[in-house]
Amino acid sequence: MRLRGRKGIRENLEQQQELVVLNPQVYKGRWAEVFGNDRPIHIELGMGKGQFISGMSVKYPDVNFIGMDMYDELIRRASEKVRAKWDGQGAKEPETVRLALGNIEMIEEFFAPGEVERIYLNFSDPWPKKKHWRRRLTHPRFLDKYRQLLNENGEIHFKTDSRVLFEFSLNAFAAVGLQMNDISLSLHEGRINEAHVMTEYESKFVGQGMPIYRCEVMVGEAAVRRYQERKMEMFE
Amino acid sequence: MRLRGRKGIRENLEQQQELVVLNPQVYKGRWAEVFGNDRPIHIELGMGKGQFISGMSVKYPDVNFIGMDMYDELIRRASEKVRAKWDGQGAKEPETVRLALGNIEMIEEFFAPGEVERIYLNFSDPWPKKKHWRRRLTHPRFLDKYRQLLNENGEIHFKTDSRVLFEFSLNAFAAVGLQMNDISLSLHEGRINEAHVMTEYESKFVGQGMPIYRCEVMVGEAAVRRYQERKMEMFE
Repeated sequence: MRLRGRKGIRENLEQQQELVVLNPQVYKGRWAEVFGNDRPIHIELGMGKGQFISGMSVKYPDVNFIGMDMYDELIRRASEKVRAKWDGQGAKEPETVRLALGNIEMIEEFFAPGEVERIYLNFSDPWPKKKHWRRRLTHPRFLDKYRQLLNENGEIHFKTDSRVLFEFSLNAFAAVGLQMNDISLSLHEGRINEAHVMTEYESKFVGQGMPIYRCEVMVGEAAVRRYQERKMEMFE
Repeated sequence: MRLRGRKGIRENLEQQQELVVLNPQVYKGRWAEVFGNDRPIHIELGMGKGQFISGMSVKYPDVNFIGMDMYDELIRRASEKVRAKWDGQGAKEPETVRLALGNIEMIEEFFAPGEVERIYLNFSDPWPKKKHWRRRLTHPRFLDKYRQLLNENGEIHFKTDSRVLFEFSLNAFAAVGLQMNDISLSLHEGRINEAHVMTEYESKFVGQGMPIYRCEVMVGEAAVRRYQERKMEMFE
């Protein structure tokens, strides 16, 4: 990330208080106030340039979205993307989106238990060296944190192009005893999924014919119950 | 499978009663008698030409192995392979191996509850058409049968080159609520596993640089308990 013009970036972000949250710990337990409604909250951890969160926010107006990243330059770029997307829809302000600056290591300081309904992990850093595996966002120590934040409908939706990260993550979900659903080893092959919003990475990799790995994890009790009721449909 | 010379094959098999079992249902609940000992019983479902079972049987002399297939020509070829392998080791008779002719659809007629300690599924037919998915050996209806047969140390070890079959199987294990362990999306890449005995297919695919998918499933209570005790080592 280039640091030139960093001060300008911060000023830019400070002028976007209706969209950008620079101090998310202040709103722990109060995100419904921030949005001014009780819609479910879906967060993307490691949002990057914001293609996914901007696309999701216009596609699902009944959900509050929070994109989180630790780099202010990415928050700035995502803010432009969100505004462009909402302008394209003829909307005034992106009311159901916030972009939050924060380190996911401290996620329990940003959200109260049960405050989040869904966590999106898209193309997270694979941290290939073994000594860095603890930093992987699907490491059991993160899964334990996520479990605290998610409500009874809570789910984690994870996708990546990294085979090694996906393999690690499946083993982590299994080890922590989480209920996996709809595991896919090649997401876009042979099917067009209209409901699917792609990230920047994803558009690029799919264009190159690379496989995308995806899995849902049912965390909340009601989410697990709904899965149990429907699961055998997959095999009929 | 060529059927020419079928009568000759059957006669050949009938003359190998110390190795070949043509009527496994007769031995349901009595396999310890067949082997003359109480060693754990590991079975391979869809054994094919017998490279895996012959290799395993000389590598693990403290285990009784049963290779099962529905084609008598494959039983004949596997019998030659087993004898060649045991001859190569200077052994007289392959005492800890049996090759059983049978249709896996009827597996509950061949083994009593708790009689089996491990099931190997190697490169099972992927049955790509949706109307044939019920025939996949990892379909939930088979998993329910396996669960009956396996004892408290029971495990299923599954490997395949078929991405679609592996994806289906992970979802099936998850749906049935079985504890997965050591999921691998590319078994041989970057590591030499001396303990690993390859099948015919596997040798060929690995030679071509194709990925092999593998997963263990802990079924018996003691197997699950051992997994629970060790699982976090993966993430350290």
